[in-house]
Formats: sequence, structure tokens, C-alpha cells
Amino acid sequence: MTEFSRIAVLGVGVLGSQIAYHTAFKGYDIVAYDVDDNAVDRARTRLAALADRYEREVEDAGAGARDIVDRIELTSDLLHAVSAADLVIEAAPELVSVKRRLFSVVGEAAPAHTVFATNTSAIPPSALMDSTGRPDRFLALHFSNLVWRHNIAEVMGTPRTDPDVYASVVRFAASIGMVPIEMKKEKPGYVLNSLLVPLLKAAGELLADDIADPAAVDDVWRIGTGAAYGPFEMLDIIGLMTAHHIASHGDAKQREFARLIKERYLDKGQTGVESGQGFYTYPPT
Amino acid sequence: MTEFSRIAVLGVGVLGSQIAYHTAFKGYDIVAYDVDDNAVDRARTRLAALADRYEREVEDAGAGARDIVDRIELTSDLLHAVSAADLVIEAAPELVSVKRRLFSVVGEAAPAHTVFATNTSAIPPSALMDSTGRPDRFLALHFSNLVWRHNIAEVMGTPRTDPDVYASVVRFAASIGMVPIEMKKEKPGYVLNSLLVPLLKAAGELLADDIADPAAVDDVWRIGTGAAYGPFEMLDIIGLMTAHHIASHGDAKQREFARLIKERYLDKGQTGVESGQGFYTYPPT
Repeated sequence: MTEFSRIAVLGVGVLGSQIAYHTAFKGYDIVAYDVDDNAVDRARTRLAALADRYEREVEDAGAGARDIVDRIELTSDLLHAVSAADLVIEAAPELVSVKRRLFSVVGEAAPAHTVFATNTSAIPPSALMDSTGRPDRFLALHFSNLVWRHNIAEVMGTPRTDPDVYASVVRFAASIGMVPIEMKKEKPGYVLNSLLVPLLKAAGELLADDIADPAAVDDVWRIGTGAAYGPFEMLDIIGLMTAHHIASHGDAKQREFARLIKERYLDKGQTGVESGQGFYTYPPT
Repeated sequence: MTEFSRIAVLGVGVLGSQIAYHTAFKGYDIVAYDVDDNAVDRARTRLAALADRYEREVEDAGAGARDIVDRIELTSDLLHAVSAADLVIEAAPELVSVKRRLFSVVGEAAPAHTVFATNTSAIPPSALMDSTGRPDRFLALHFSNLVWRHNIAEVMGTPRTDPDVYASVVRFAASIGMVPIEMKKEKPGYVLNSLLVPLLKAAGELLADDIADPAAVDDVWRIGTGAAYGPFEMLDIIGLMTAHHIASHGDAKQREFARLIKERYLDKGQTGVESGQGFYTYPPT
């Protein structure tokens, strides 16, 4: 446990639900906020599904995994959610306007000591800091999908983040079993996407140029580097809608890759692992 | 076994010795050529060291690993080496002039049915094909270091390679336990370096920009993608001399990365795994 004891998670989508569940699982008091009663109902379903996965996949979770859900307070009352929080973790949609509005409300409502963290993957925290009213107590804390397995938490401050606050969030991340990745400066894409995007781009180029088939490319990467997944398997996991979106904003070869993804897969409703079909076929889960 | 029975390996350096040993281990008749008696002596030492590694690391190698060395005919007589070969695998230094001279001699001396393969990693096979006198029976067959573990063989023809010859080399690669990677076109760097170089470049940029420490970057990559090695561990394995050489020919950030490698490591004689020290410290082997 750290100097934080009560944590508010704002936004209970795919990653927000994982952050809320995992942090509760590690013993913290959690209140999870979403925008209205419908969203709260969906959050409850998500958390129950997560409990099943923890029971199956996470050591030490076991039969108590369902009880964790009951310990998470779900609410659509934002002011209540943050009123007693020591740490607020924002996991709202990736829109600057949404996040800024949220932080300006929360900045008014939360106690003075509360630390604010954004889980944004694409927005530099310095683009949000003034909206919080407390830039010294604000930073980015970025989780990866499947937090119990890909247990990294990238910690990225702004030029105005108090080093003590930064250190306290690093300790918090470690206390919930994450490997804290201390970033010394702001960097779009953090470390993970700074590495992953060039690799996936190179793989897309090999396909656009018809150099080798996806399965051959993946064989090379797995066998040649000892990786668990080849780049086309990674793209199927990330999802071909996202892959298409990114590639279609790239150079001519990337746009050609985007066109291939659309024609061969998306136009047939194939979006990767999620749909059961992408570069590879997946059994129903 | 395939339509090839006797294999000549030209050049018994780091990779040539692995190709010769592994192919003999898989039951082929091997003759291995190097330039003079001194080189042949060094080759004998290399092959003996490989036998020890196979005995320790390769299933099915066992106590017979040393006997494999005795089955490899070592010679400094090039004409003799290729006189009865079905397949010649060239693993000479990466100089176009050296390889062209070698293939022009071998093209005269080898039987008409003999297939020629180059293990070049940097020279497009089409830059060598006319020197062979038989471009239809010539292609690139590219192994990765530690062939028994990183068992991929990238097969890359030129526009003039006979498809039947290409297919026979694919079958040969599979017959020695390699996963043949069929490349449909020539591509500098094959598949492996086409993927690896952008990843390592991105890692170098994170260091040059002082975004995060090498250990943090490697944590992200291993945990976030399930990889066996992070990019800085890979650079230590590849060797910091090679890493420096490549980065010093890149853009401004890569040249900054090259400068860091030189100042922090190379100037102290630290070249990565090989020297026991690079981005990480390694125990003596």
C-alpha cells in the first residue's frame, strides 16, 4: 500500500474497467465513475467478465475474484466519485475536449491533496495540465491492454509535475504489481508505441510490396528474435480497424497497406482476433 | 534428404561453420572450403567448438556431436571443393568483388547441374548472378546466426532464378530443419532486417532523446509484446561495433545514438555480450 488509499477511476471502458478491477484486486478502495446509468450497467457487466478471466488466468485470484466486483463502488455521480479520492485515474475517451472538461470539473471538486493521472495514449499530458487547476499534481499513467498480463505502467510527467508526486505514482504503480516505466520527458506514443509503430509499419510495407506472406514474416520475427507474436499476429490483436486507421494516415506504401487491409478483411467484416478472422483464423472464445 | 546429396560450403567463418556443421549434422555430405591452411585450421577449431555447443544445447546431438566434425571434409582447394557438389553455399566476406570472383571460378569448375546459393546479408543476389555463368541456377539462401536455434532460412531468387531450382532449395532448407521463408522478390535486408532495423532505430532514438533508460525500454518491449529480448539486449547480442557502424550512417538522431554508443561503451572496449559488457553486464561464458 502507498500514501494513496482511495482511488477513483473515471471511465469504465475496456481499459478503465481493467484498471479499476486490478487496483481493487490489489487491495485499494475503488470508486469507478461513468457518465450515466446505462454506462454504469455496461461497466458492471465488464467487471463481472473480468472477474471470470482473473479466476481462470491470474494466480492468487481464485474463487474470490467475484467478490472484488462487489468491492468496487460504481457511480454516475462525478462529484461523489472524486470527493474522497487520493488518486484519480482518468480513462475517458481520447478527445482533448472531453478530458479537459472532465479535469476542470474534477479539479474543482476533489480535495487539494488529490493527485490526477490521465491514462491517455495519444494526448500529451501537457495539453491537459492547465485544465486540472493543479498541474504540479498531474501526470500521465499509461496502462496496456490486459493489465494483469502486460503489466507495464508508463509514467510520464509534464514540465510542471512535482517530482515527489511523480515518485508517489511510480510507487503506486509498483504496489499494484505493475513494472513502472519512468519516462524522463513527454513523448507521443510513450515507449511502447514508439517501438511498436515502426515495426508494424515495416511489416505493412513488406505486404504492400508483396515481398513475403504474413505467415512467413511472422515466422521470421518469432524464430529470429524469440518473440511471442509476429507483427501480423500483433495487428490482429490490436484490431484491423485501428491498423487501417493508422496506416491510412501514413505515406504512399502505408496507404497501400491500408487499402489491402480494407479490401481483404474489413470489407468482409473481418477485424482480427475480435471477429475470429484477420490475417489468421481464431477459434471462438 | 532431397535431390541434393553433396554440399559445398565456401567460407568457414562464424556463419559458414554453422551452416557446414548443421548440414552435416542433418546427414548431408559436406565439403567446406576456406582460403588457405591457416583459415582451414581456424575452421577446424570453430567446428569443434560448435560440436560442444550442439552436445550441450541441441536435442538429438548428444555424444555423437564430435563425430560430425570428422565427417566434414575441410579443404583449401576450391576446385576440388565444388567438383562433385550438388549445391554450393557461399558464405564468403560481404564484398561484391570477392563473391563475384569466387562465383566466376566456381561457375567454371562445378558440374552443370550444381545449384549455387549465396548467404549474403547485404548484397542483392542480382548483383552477383551474371558472375555465376548460370543465373537460372543461382539464388540467395540466408541463414541467421545460431542456426540451430534461430532456424529460419530466407530464400530469395533473382528475376532469372528458375522456379524449380528455387523450390528445390526451399525443400533443402526444410530438410535440415530450417523454416524456409519464401521471399517473392528481392529485398535488401530480407524480411528479418527489414523488421529489425526500424525497431532498433526507434530504440536508439529514445536513448538519443533521453526519453527513458535502456532497461526501462527493454522492460516495455518484453512485457508489452511478449518478446524474449528488448531492443537494447538485441543490440548487445548483435554487437555494439555493428550497431555503431549502422547508426553512424543514419540521420542526425542515429548519429547522436552512434556517438553515445562510442563514448559510453566502445571507447572503454565494451562491445556487448561478446566482451561481457554493453548496455548490460554479462557473466563470462
